[in-house]
Amino acid sequence: MGEFVHEEIPSTELDRLEATYRPLADAVRDLLDATIRTTVPEEQVRAAQAEIEALVARLRAEQLPGPAGVRFNSEARAWNWGNAVVGLRNAVAPPLRIVHESAGHAWAEVELGAPYEGPPGLVHGGVSAMLLDHLMGETASAAFTRVTFTGTLTMTYRRGTPLGPLRLEARIDREEGRKVWVVASIGDADGVTVEAEGVFIVPAWAAGEAARG
Amino acid sequence: MGEFVHEEIPSTELDRLEATYRPLADAVRDLLDATIRTTVPEEQVRAAQAEIEALVARLRAEQLPGPAGVRFNSEARAWNWGNAVVGLRNAVAPPLRIVHESAGHAWAEVELGAPYEGPPGLVHGGVSAMLLDHLMGETASAAFTRVTFTGTLTMTYRRGTPLGPLRLEARIDREEGRKVWVVASIGDADGVTVEAEGVFIVPAWAAGEAARG
Repeated sequence: MGEFVHEEIPSTELDRLEATYRPLADAVRDLLDATIRTTVPEEQVRAAQAEIEALVARLRAEQLPGPAGVRFNSEARAWNWGNAVVGLRNAVAPPLRIVHESAGHAWAEVELGAPYEGPPGLVHGGVSAMLLDHLMGETASAAFTRVTFTGTLTMTYRRGTPLGPLRLEARIDREEGRKVWVVASIGDADGVTVEAEGVFIVPAWAAGEAARG
Repeated sequence: MGEFVHEEIPSTELDRLEATYRPLADAVRDLLDATIRTTVPEEQVRAAQAEIEALVARLRAEQLPGPAGVRFNSEARAWNWGNAVVGLRNAVAPPLRIVHESAGHAWAEVELGAPYEGPPGLVHGGVSAMLLDHLMGETASAAFTRVTFTGTLTMTYRRGTPLGPLRLEARIDREEGRKVWVVASIGDADGVTVEAEGVFIVPAWAAGEAARG
């Protein structure tokens, strides 16, 4: 694993930067959907491609040497704008906006469209697994008060998950030593479509840290 | 689930269309990476956003009313260009290019960059789950010779999966009645990072079909 990077950007400045980058990524999310669904004539497709390539060259004129990583400042603010599930600047991410109701109980509401399709009209089973994995990891961390790693994750598919508005929910079920069991689900207005159970591990160094702290 | 759509486009024409759409989606994949990593001045970010929004409007002038679905012609060619894992026209998908070595044994090689990050420098655990889910489903279908649905899926995380070149592999382990067990893994040059086991179900109607056919 790479380092968590300490970068001393004040939180007020981060808010301003997020207000700049969020609409850029949202425009890219929209472009991604349009790329799947467009039926315009082929010469227009080729023209769009050329313009996107020119745009990429301009954005790459100055860029990070690698992935975005996870950064934090000394005001205890952390940001992972590149994260595949919750990353503000990552158009692969819906992004999921997770509400930590309490330590060990979190939920999210999300609307999934064309880019998340698997079987016709349904959310890809792997996408459900991806979103649940992230929500459960954050839940195991008890709202970021400790570090946990995913041990095992089991998904049970009850029925197809329709594209559209969905709700995810996760809770810590029980804990034993450095092991944390989390149960979770995703579903639509008619109820649960996929259930999940995961075992998360608090690493020995972090458990020691907590004991010392 | 929506319908599988019969659309009578000749396979030679599909090849030509794919040669048009693949580079468009690849340009969008590149844009997505640049959106995460760019450090150009903010006025340039806003200019890029405006251009992307204009581009989206042009592509949406004519478009499918909803998600792309799965289509097939009478030459037994099927295409799922919008699929979240293997979709040629979907920039959420790397896309995974799966090789069916034989019925019940498939693999894929893929290079994952910044858009698939979870912990710093590592592939998001949910992304590994998403890719494995798809590969295992295709494997259970015995190279598309039957229909299967995912029952349960269990992931065991051995260590972090580094961003970069990766290999996925899946095999049918055993079958019993309408149940198919598939084992799979993802890993880097140093070996396996995530192992998976899945139970896939051949629906009664499809099993009956096979028995009649």
